[in-house]
Amino acid sequence: MRATTFHGVGDIRVEDVPDSQILAPTDAIVRVTKAGICGSDLHFLHYGDALGMTPGLRLGHEFVGVVEEVGSEVTGLVVGDRVVAPFAFSDNTCACCTLDVQSSCAQGGIFGSPFWGEHAGGQVEGGQAEALRVPQASGTLVKIPNSLASAENDSKVLPLGDVLSTGYHAAVNAGVGPGSTAVVIGDGAVGLSGVISATLLGAERIIHVGHHADRLEIGRAAGATDSINGKEQDVVATVLEMTDGLGADGAVETISSNGTIEQAINVTRPGGHVGIVGMSHFFEEASGQPYAVAFMKNVALHPGVCPSRHYIPGLLKDLEAGKMDPSVVFTHDLALDDAPEGYRIMDQRVDGSIKVALTPGS
Amino acid sequence: MRATTFHGVGDIRVEDVPDSQILAPTDAIVRVTKAGICGSDLHFLHYGDALGMTPGLRLGHEFVGVVEEVGSEVTGLVVGDRVVAPFAFSDNTCACCTLDVQSSCAQGGIFGSPFWGEHAGGQVEGGQAEALRVPQASGTLVKIPNSLASAENDSKVLPLGDVLSTGYHAAVNAGVGPGSTAVVIGDGAVGLSGVISATLLGAERIIHVGHHADRLEIGRAAGATDSINGKEQDVVATVLEMTDGLGADGAVETISSNGTIEQAINVTRPGGHVGIVGMSHFFEEASGQPYAVAFMKNVALHPGVCPSRHYIPGLLKDLEAGKMDPSVVFTHDLALDDAPEGYRIMDQRVDGSIKVALTPGS
Repeated sequence: MRATTFHGVGDIRVEDVPDSQILAPTDAIVRVTKAGICGSDLHFLHYGDALGMTPGLRLGHEFVGVVEEVGSEVTGLVVGDRVVAPFAFSDNTCACCTLDVQSSCAQGGIFGSPFWGEHAGGQVEGGQAEALRVPQASGTLVKIPNSLASAENDSKVLPLGDVLSTGYHAAVNAGVGPGSTAVVIGDGAVGLSGVISATLLGAERIIHVGHHADRLEIGRAAGATDSINGKEQDVVATVLEMTDGLGADGAVETISSNGTIEQAINVTRPGGHVGIVGMSHFFEEASGQPYAVAFMKNVALHPGVCPSRHYIPGLLKDLEAGKMDPSVVFTHDLALDDAPEGYRIMDQRVDGSIKVALTPGS
Repeated sequence: MRATTFHGVGDIRVEDVPDSQILAPTDAIVRVTKAGICGSDLHFLHYGDALGMTPGLRLGHEFVGVVEEVGSEVTGLVVGDRVVAPFAFSDNTCACCTLDVQSSCAQGGIFGSPFWGEHAGGQVEGGQAEALRVPQASGTLVKIPNSLASAENDSKVLPLGDVLSTGYHAAVNAGVGPGSTAVVIGDGAVGLSGVISATLLGAERIIHVGHHADRLEIGRAAGATDSINGKEQDVVATVLEMTDGLGADGAVETISSNGTIEQAINVTRPGGHVGIVGMSHFFEEASGQPYAVAFMKNVALHPGVCPSRHYIPGLLKDLEAGKMDPSVVFTHDLALDDAPEGYRIMDQRVDGSIKVALTPGS
């Protein structure tokens, strides 16, 4: 059968490969009816050697198709079912799957990579092919409902496996919901998916930022209420002007270079959220920050100076109820006139100091 | 009256200053009964010149005291009330305050700094003094309930204005709740406050990470169920071992150097959260990432590869309901054997390409 394979940077081929076979009782064989080329595949095109990809590796992690064969332990699927696959396979029963983080399924090793083809060192086949073996088929594959289970709907269903759900994930992580104002940064396939997702999640205002007039037009047709062409307008100033100086409730950031992450932070209101789903931080910049690890694990980072005024009334109730003794942080209590000595004690950690109080009039 | 003032790096003094006066009808004058020296004050001690602080600037943003005088528009407070102040003043009515981000109150200019003394260029007085003028007194000050309104309880109430609420904010942002496993990184006053806060929020397991045996002992007394001395043990390996290889639900990160943020990410389970409240990224490292902006605005960053398997079933329902057409992302549809050309078309953006589909057998 025919399959797309990697043979070095810039060298992608379609060649004959052995027919796919069931290797484990949890496997299924899927005949592919439509596959996608992903923006992340272009990273393999450019950086495959550096990523340790070897000649002959199978490519493709976006596909829909028809089940041709199932292993003896596969449940919920029968031969002939039309199915869509996510870009990571998953058993849907491990600790991470149960926590809805199927991208970290233990089948890829915890914090590993349960990905198709290129990511998995060749032991797992790729979807840009006539067929492939699907591990953990019961957990991985989703049966397409009858009303959509036809070749003519494949191009609508295919994006759900990666690009659309990725845009949706970013919108969820950006806190987009009914009535929100959302900024979507990027006019590629994920950016457009972010616009679609923001409409699905009920955003009231969707400000789409891109560099291409034709793509921004597609974004408007998909639900964007406003567009900003970053080649022609100052993105941050324009968003702030559109939002009474406050910023949007959330930013759906689909590029993820240092520059676009910074832009996303600057267009978001205080207390808002930025969903980051691009991969530029992996390949194109030495960011000096561990975004890549947080990205693979879906660990959210909440930096924030404390709005103490918000918490004090509740904490006073806890204190009244005797639930804590926060004074344990004080190791010293000095007269106000001893403040310089207090600074020295804290700074040099004199006598195991943790924190110094000053009492005027003492 | 006496007040603590800045006179250059390493030069903190207590000197006579003019008595505080009501300048606006929303002001109050508070006689300070106890003030704190904050870890962030040490940053001013070391970096004040670089931060633009000029000689004579008032210091101190943690204080409790008694109301001595109120302006004509102050409501909810009377002379004699014992009060605690947050480390930022706020009107509690602006857009950011209404969104519970009082640290970004418009009184400091949106995204500005409604902070005491040192931060505000000297127009606002500091709390390490016998007394000070409090702007926006009705919104800023919180009356201490009668059962705690006495000098002997000042050292319990004082931490609520900054260090305790900061630890609490980090724990909230780390998603700590009933039954959680939380890691608290840091054994300074904020780290200990993080331990106290995790207990208040109902964490089942609190793993406290520090470098000082005596402080870790205070942490255990305050509710930590486990301690790790980072000088003696590998923090990440130990946490993973304690959590069946998965990691904790959330990390309360109170130092915020690049190293401790990375450590926090590595001890957190997939899908977990890291609350970041330290300030090292401001002063001690050129991080190359805009944490400082996100920190001041409380903008959460959610990097994350999509767990598509989680979203596909719901998105199939939206697709069946005709709520979207995700196929708008495809500009080209080629035969499988044309995959190399498809990569080229996407990579070089031929004919305005956005995304390419491959259809085996076409």
